[in-house]
Amino acid sequence: MTPALLIHGGAGAATPSALQAERRSGLTAAFEAGWDILIQGGTALDAVVQATVTLEDHPLFNAGLGSCLTEDGTVEVDASLMDGSTFQTGAVGAAKHIKNAICLAREVMTDGRHVFLVGRGAERFAREHGLPQAAADELITPRQHQRWQALRLSSGQAQRSNSEPGTVGAVALDSSGRLAAATSTGGVFDKRAGRVGDSAVIGAGTYADSAMGACSATGDGEDIIRATLARTAVELLRGGKDPAQAARTALARLTRQTRGEAGLILLDPFGRRGVAYTTESMSVALRLGSGQAFRAEGRLVVRV
Amino acid sequence: MTPALLIHGGAGAATPSALQAERRSGLTAAFEAGWDILIQGGTALDAVVQATVTLEDHPLFNAGLGSCLTEDGTVEVDASLMDGSTFQTGAVGAAKHIKNAICLAREVMTDGRHVFLVGRGAERFAREHGLPQAAADELITPRQHQRWQALRLSSGQAQRSNSEPGTVGAVALDSSGRLAAATSTGGVFDKRAGRVGDSAVIGAGTYADSAMGACSATGDGEDIIRATLARTAVELLRGGKDPAQAARTALARLTRQTRGEAGLILLDPFGRRGVAYTTESMSVALRLGSGQAFRAEGRLVVRV
Repeated sequence: MTPALLIHGGAGAATPSALQAERRSGLTAAFEAGWDILIQGGTALDAVVQATVTLEDHPLFNAGLGSCLTEDGTVEVDASLMDGSTFQTGAVGAAKHIKNAICLAREVMTDGRHVFLVGRGAERFAREHGLPQAAADELITPRQHQRWQALRLSSGQAQRSNSEPGTVGAVALDSSGRLAAATSTGGVFDKRAGRVGDSAVIGAGTYADSAMGACSATGDGEDIIRATLARTAVELLRGGKDPAQAARTALARLTRQTRGEAGLILLDPFGRRGVAYTTESMSVALRLGSGQAFRAEGRLVVRV
Repeated sequence: MTPALLIHGGAGAATPSALQAERRSGLTAAFEAGWDILIQGGTALDAVVQATVTLEDHPLFNAGLGSCLTEDGTVEVDASLMDGSTFQTGAVGAAKHIKNAICLAREVMTDGRHVFLVGRGAERFAREHGLPQAAADELITPRQHQRWQALRLSSGQAQRSNSEPGTVGAVALDSSGRLAAATSTGGVFDKRAGRVGDSAVIGAGTYADSAMGACSATGDGEDIIRATLARTAVELLRGGKDPAQAARTALARLTRQTRGEAGLILLDPFGRRGVAYTTESMSVALRLGSGQAFRAEGRLVVRV
């Protein structure tokens, strides 16, 4: 089977032109990191994790380094992943001092005792399992700190509602036909401490079933939870339906039920892709065509 | 429209005979508390909250007072609820010192800024919004403390895996045709601190859509999350399918995907009910027939 990979860097307002080149290079690097794994016969799960880690480590995406700050001025991260061939999942929510939330979610999955750890307990689990710890200010970029400070100095609502995209995610199909999905975020800007969004919720931000499809969603997290968006999009693939159409239908249901805006990437077991968004913009990277030959021939498309 | 109400007190091993009478009276009181609201023209949301609060306050159910303890010997509660007519939801996870988690989840919904708060942040929100706080040991019953101590003194695994049911939940249809669902739990016995289970996850333990159905699920929480069980059961009602059949089909999918065991209660917009479980036992209360006339005539069925 020819592998396929789709990654995203969030859905929301358009990326300011001053940031486009850097975000484009971040998405390119993340795509290539995941793609290298797939064309060497690696698993879909490894590919989505590697692509996600690369974006978490990039300061211009809202995940890991560069996360949005809470109203307390701290970083609390959410992430989840799912292996569509085993239905194994791992998720973490509202966790501080975590450099790569997707690696912690994967460790939760591998440990196997639970699938979802949050807050203090997730942080303790990370320490006990030897995951790299981040100092309190290590994940805070000057850009995010300035944004938080500007809101504090202003009257409030205007800047909070200015939704800058940047949640990251990936879906992959490997050469053995396995599908996987991963999503990671710093959450919504100026959120309450302890707020968990769709990126940590299996069925909302992330879902994968190797018989049906894999999805990573992003946008208005509260509404994505209410609509179980990723699960809905995957369910709409039942019977071999077209992913492009399923992605649009899932978002139409979200709009009808909640009026929320979102975007999603969707991949089916045949490697067919769906990308749709109701926000102004969505950052994605994908390779046109598919298969190993396309490493050289397929054209990498990166949209920021 | 004639109202309907279904409540449950968990799925798992059979209730020990010494506890059956007390659990039966708890379920009866909870059912009547919710039913009183419905027959007086109250909302489905108020009914499921009131039934759930009554069971949280009862010491023989694993929610609120009487919750299972974590491996640290503490109580950390999960709960969620959903109004199927507005798609509004509220959820809390891994929260300490909370007497009635379902009331906190409802406060999160009413506040409206987020839908899911966990850990420290959920606890702060509860304090700031004036919800009753519980002292560290106030929710720990002698029965649960003894169980936790017995595991500490023993070799371990045997008692941890002895799954005593007791998560609580309710689904209701009110006279205006609105559906709602609620679920609350202390979680799995001897869990890690910070573990969040299906009861806090919209789409897993709880889902409601007034056009399709309302569901509260319980059982192997990790597997219920992987299978998005409540969302799956509600989706299976699409097109007016029979809830009894949908409940069985949803559990069959759970079994196939994860081998987990669970139970669920399901209600459709016509007041038709589905109850199914793959565990040894499930505690439920429902009134045969429906409508205001059944306050006197309908027979209350309580199974523990």
